[in-house]
Amino acid sequence: MSIYTNIANHIALNPSEREYLDTKLRLKHIPKKTMLLEQGEVAKKFYYVDQGSLRAFNTNTKGKESTIMFAMKDWWITDMYAFMNQKPALVSIETLEKCALVELDFKAMESVLDKLPKLERYFRILFQRAYVREQLRVLDNISSDVEQRYFRFIEKYPDVSRKITQKQLASYLGVTPEFLSQIKNK
Amino acid sequence: MSIYTNIANHIALNPSEREYLDTKLRLKHIPKKTMLLEQGEVAKKFYYVDQGSLRAFNTNTKGKESTIMFAMKDWWITDMYAFMNQKPALVSIETLEKCALVELDFKAMESVLDKLPKLERYFRILFQRAYVREQLRVLDNISSDVEQRYFRFIEKYPDVSRKITQKQLASYLGVTPEFLSQIKNK
Repeated sequence: MSIYTNIANHIALNPSEREYLDTKLRLKHIPKKTMLLEQGEVAKKFYYVDQGSLRAFNTNTKGKESTIMFAMKDWWITDMYAFMNQKPALVSIETLEKCALVELDFKAMESVLDKLPKLERYFRILFQRAYVREQLRVLDNISSDVEQRYFRFIEKYPDVSRKITQKQLASYLGVTPEFLSQIKNK
Repeated sequence: MSIYTNIANHIALNPSEREYLDTKLRLKHIPKKTMLLEQGEVAKKFYYVDQGSLRAFNTNTKGKESTIMFAMKDWWITDMYAFMNQKPALVSIETLEKCALVELDFKAMESVLDKLPKLERYFRILFQRAYVREQLRVLDNISSDVEQRYFRFIEKYPDVSRKITQKQLASYLGVTPEFLSQIKNK
């Protein structure tokens, strides 16, 4: 599993620590277009993407769908608000293609951090980066127009761009698919 | 300093650990309306708010100012993107009133995490919450209208709302002060 390579980029686990962690992780193969989490359900799992890609989206009271994040190989994904507080999720999560995911349960994560405190560092770096990513997105949304944001997105996430539909990208940028297609045709 | 109470909510430091940490922190008293970081400068410090309040804002190429975040007592603030990567800041940070701030240098933070790995847990929790806060903001911006966002903001952050100007709040919500005042008068 590439998760151990990913972890090894930040901390060194000895064989027994790795063995313990392995008892808490579960590798799952999930078909394309599978809902892993439905908005309103308690988010019980944190997923590491070993292979494939996913999307998290919110549907508002008027039925409008907004894509909140995409996740690719080596990213982690869940509704972190709902996972952390064990509350109903504000987003749904679906696979965009066939995926291999490493599942970490809420309780398993607590035990893992308790038994292997060095993983605190791994997750500290992960959340620090995720925080920066979201803050850059807020900055981008506030200070740039849709055209700039579109080009920045495809430049920054070329792999994501290739795997998603125009409708999904439009709902991430907060515009209609028609408006996005006008920008692309310019 | 309330920072030790804040840390004690998450981890237990023994007296010698606390003493070591104390050598790396500096309490500073800063007057109102002081620029702590200018957009374009490398962000060298991470600030814990012991007293007072601050604002981080971006000025785009057209001169438009957008408020990215506010920080109150017991919050941490910096341009995390710039601090983490030691790159030029994308935002400026100013005090909104007289502040007492605890400064942590970039290098001091590295040493502290190295010498006191249990602080990884404290910062993991901090960044995990910051990530959730930013993700909720993205969700809010995408799926709600300005009126809903305004009421949610004053409900969620009553202390912040009392300390900021209408212009600052409008630039946080991404609208003109006139538009915000129309909403308030409704």
